[in-house]
Amino acid sequence: LSLRDEIHEQPEVAGGFLDRARPAVEAIAAATADRPIDVVVIAARGTSDHAAVYAQYLFGALHRLPVALATPSLVSLFGIEPRLDRALVIGISQSGRSPDVVSVIASARRQGAPTIAITNAPDSPLATAAESSIDLLAGPERATAATKTYTAQLLAIATLVAAMPDRDASTGFAGSREERRSALDAIPAALIAALTAEGDAARLAAERRDLDRCVVLGRSFDYATAREWALKLKELAQVHADPYSAADFQHGPLALVEPGYPVLAVAPSGRAGADIATLLERLRAEHDVDALVISDDAAIRAVGRGSLALPAGLPEWLMPVVSIVPGQLFALHLTAAKGLDPEQPRWITKVTETR
Amino acid sequence: LSLRDEIHEQPEVAGGFLDRARPAVEAIAAATADRPIDVVVIAARGTSDHAAVYAQYLFGALHRLPVALATPSLVSLFGIEPRLDRALVIGISQSGRSPDVVSVIASARRQGAPTIAITNAPDSPLATAAESSIDLLAGPERATAATKTYTAQLLAIATLVAAMPDRDASTGFAGSREERRSALDAIPAALIAALTAEGDAARLAAERRDLDRCVVLGRSFDYATAREWALKLKELAQVHADPYSAADFQHGPLALVEPGYPVLAVAPSGRAGADIATLLERLRAEHDVDALVISDDAAIRAVGRGSLALPAGLPEWLMPVVSIVPGQLFALHLTAAKGLDPEQPRWITKVTETR
Repeated sequence: LSLRDEIHEQPEVAGGFLDRARPAVEAIAAATADRPIDVVVIAARGTSDHAAVYAQYLFGALHRLPVALATPSLVSLFGIEPRLDRALVIGISQSGRSPDVVSVIASARRQGAPTIAITNAPDSPLATAAESSIDLLAGPERATAATKTYTAQLLAIATLVAAMPDRDASTGFAGSREERRSALDAIPAALIAALTAEGDAARLAAERRDLDRCVVLGRSFDYATAREWALKLKELAQVHADPYSAADFQHGPLALVEPGYPVLAVAPSGRAGADIATLLERLRAEHDVDALVISDDAAIRAVGRGSLALPAGLPEWLMPVVSIVPGQLFALHLTAAKGLDPEQPRWITKVTETR
Repeated sequence: LSLRDEIHEQPEVAGGFLDRARPAVEAIAAATADRPIDVVVIAARGTSDHAAVYAQYLFGALHRLPVALATPSLVSLFGIEPRLDRALVIGISQSGRSPDVVSVIASARRQGAPTIAITNAPDSPLATAAESSIDLLAGPERATAATKTYTAQLLAIATLVAAMPDRDASTGFAGSREERRSALDAIPAALIAALTAEGDAARLAAERRDLDRCVVLGRSFDYATAREWALKLKELAQVHADPYSAADFQHGPLALVEPGYPVLAVAPSGRAGADIATLLERLRAEHDVDALVISDDAAIRAVGRGSLALPAGLPEWLMPVVSIVPGQLFALHLTAAKGLDPEQPRWITKVTETR
C-alpha cells in the first residue's frame, strides 16, 4: 500500500532533506540578500498551493514580506506577464511539469527577478526554468494523493525562510537565524511522534464512516493544514470538505451548521489555535456540532468530541509541517472504512498539466 | 422582501455610482501616479474577499501589478505588520467595521503607503482609517446576504483600476484609459438585461430543489463570481457549494464527480470561458454531470443541461460585475423552493466583526 507507506516515510524524508539539502537551501537564502525584494510571488496548484499558503504566513511573520499567490491564467490564457522586477518568485510543483506554473517562473526569470523552484523532480521543466532549484529528495511518490512531498515542500519553505538573512524589517518572531535553524532539527522526531496518532485516527474514522460533508477549520500558519486536510478528504474519501479560516467561516458559511454537523479543526497551542478553540466551544454550545480536533494541547483537544494528538514542543510557525499528519491518517482510514481505494482516487492522475 | 428588492436595485445602484462617485474615484486613481507601487495588498473578508479576488485579476491584467491578499491574523493575533512601503493597500468591507480589515489599513497608513477604503459606510472605522475612501452609495442593505454592495464593490474596483494612469508596465489589454472609461458606461443596462434571467433562474431552481452539494467553476476574472455564487448558495440555500478555478478543480477535487453530479459554471465568451466550456464538455461526456451554465454565448450555454443567459457585448474584464446576477437569482429562488428564509440565513448576522 504505497499511500500508507508514503505517510510513514515522512520522518525519513524530512531527516534526509535536512541532512542533504539544507546547505544548498541556505546558499539560495543567502543569495537573496543581494536582490531588491518588496514582495514574494508564488505559483502553485492543488496540494502545492497549500504549501504556498503556508509560505504566505511564514514570509509575513519572519520578514514582513507580503506574498501574492500568482494568477497563472493571466500568463497562460492572456499572455499578460505580471511585473516582477522587485519580487522573489517561487514555483512549487511535485512533478515540476504543470505548464501554467512553469510559465510564471519563466516570465519572472526573463525580467531578472530571483526565481526558485521547489520540486521533487530536479530535471523537470520547472527546475530548469528557475535560477535556483530546491530538490525535495523525497523519492518517487506513487500514490496519487500527495503526502510526503507536501510535508517536504513545507520543510523546504521553512528551511528557506528561516535561513534568509534578517533585514531591517525582520521581526524576530521566531528568534535569531541560529535559533530558527535549530528549531528545524526537531521536525523528524516530531513527525515520528505524530504518526503514533494512527490508532486513534483509524478508530475515529471508523466511527465516522458515513461522513460525506464537513467543514475544516484552521487559522494563520495552520490555515494551510485545513486546506490540505480538506483536499485529502475530497480526493481520497469523497467527502465534501470545505476549508475555512476561523474568521472567514463566520462571514457566511456558519449557516451550514446544525446539530451533529461535523466540524474538523487544526488548533495547535498558540494564538491561532486559541482562537479556533474559542470558536469550537461556541459551535458546540450553540449548535452541538460533532467537533474533531487536532492539537498538541490537551485542553484544546478536550473541546472536541474526538481528537488526535500532536507532539508538544514545536513552535507555532513550524507546526504545519507536522500537524497535517494525523489528518492524512484520518483521511486514509476513512477511505478504507468507506471501502474506497486509497491508491488511485477515481478520475484523477498523479501529474495534472493545466494551462 | 428586501433580498429580491436589493438584487433588482443593482442597475440603479450602478448608475448612481457612475453618476455621483466616479469623479472622486478618478481623482484617487490619478493620485496613485505619484507614489511608488510595486504591489497591491488587499484586506477583506467574506463577500468582500471575492471583490478582492476580482481586483487581483484586474490589477494584473491592466497594470501588471501583483496583488497580495492580506493575512489579517498576522496583524490582529501576532501584532506583526507587513512591510507595505511600496504597496497600494486597499480595504474592502460593506460595513467598514471588521477590526481585522481596519488593522491592516491602519498599519499601512502609519507606514506611509497609499491606502484606499471601499465601503458602503463612509463614517465607518475603515473609511476613517484610510487616506482615501470610496463610498459605494448603495443605500442601506437590509438582507443579511450581500448582493447590491457586492456588485457595487466590483464596479468601484473596475472604475478605480480602469482610471489609473497607464505606466510603462501597463498592457493595453482593455484599451486606452478613455476606452476603459466608456466601457464602464454599459454596466447599468447590462445589469437590467441580466435580471431578465429571473424566470429561467426560478424554473431551474425549482427543478433542483433537492440540491444539497455542487461545485461551482469559474476562471480568471470570473473566478471571483464562482466564489461569490458558492457563498450565496451556502448562506442562503444551505448548499455545500465548493468553488474552484477550472485548473485547480482538475488537481484533486475532480474525484467528487459522478453521474448526475451538479456542476455550476460561469463561462462568459472569451478565453477563460472557452477553457471552462472545454472542461464542461469533458465532464458531461465522461461523467454525465448535471451542468448548469451562466454565459452570454449561446454555444457555451448549449453545453449545459440548463443555462442562464447574460447580455452580450461586455468585455471579459467587466463581465463579473454582471455575471453574478443570474447566480444571485438562482440562489434566491432555490432558497424559496427549499422553504428557507432568504431574508435571514440562520446563525449569521449582517455585520461580522472578526479579529
